[in-house]
Amino acid sequence: MPHKKTEHQLSQSKCPIARAAALVGDPWVLLILRELREEARRFNELRNAIANISPRTLSARLKFLEQEGIVARTVIPETPPHVEYSLTEKGRALVPIIAQLQEYGETWLKT
Amino acid sequence: MPHKKTEHQLSQSKCPIARAAALVGDPWVLLILRELREEARRFNELRNAIANISPRTLSARLKFLEQEGIVARTVIPETPPHVEYSLTEKGRALVPIIAQLQEYGETWLKT
Repeated sequence: MPHKKTEHQLSQSKCPIARAAALVGDPWVLLILRELREEARRFNELRNAIANISPRTLSARLKFLEQEGIVARTVIPETPPHVEYSLTEKGRALVPIIAQLQEYGETWLKT
Repeated sequence: MPHKKTEHQLSQSKCPIARAAALVGDPWVLLILRELREEARRFNELRNAIANISPRTLSARLKFLEQEGIVARTVIPETPPHVEYSLTEKGRALVPIIAQLQEYGETWLKT
């Protein structure tokens, strides 16, 4: 999520692109979507899979995505119990955008 | 562009999605792409078309996009001369992502 004030302003916009930009106009959000598009993940699995993300940032982004209905947080009742994060239907609808970012990166942003 | 350090780290990633996220993981970049996808624009036209963007932020994002080869800055030799910004071929390749954001916003982020 972009800066709080910016994110709020954009999310109220009449323009659907601006509303979507308020949601995904953030690299960490895009990388969380990358990780969750295949399967549910635990916090530490996400933390290890996304280079350079701090626990604080990851926690804030997961909370934001949960509030926006993009990510579901599920307590798995095993021993010991643990928490998993997964995409909701609203979240899964963002997966084609991640696929396009991949294609763009492979074509235009070669290392 | 995300925070400088984050942007730099991500742009060096082996992952094409991370490299693309370094470029478009920013709401202002996404809205500049929205404006330039139809036609070339002047600075003030962009400023008026993107609600809540400051001149300083707009200038910094245009400079970033120019350095990344996404936007071309052209001096139009009229009287008086003026500057126009337009998408390069590398920039135009991002337009399908903007179209998908529009579709997502219309479907899932109704006001």
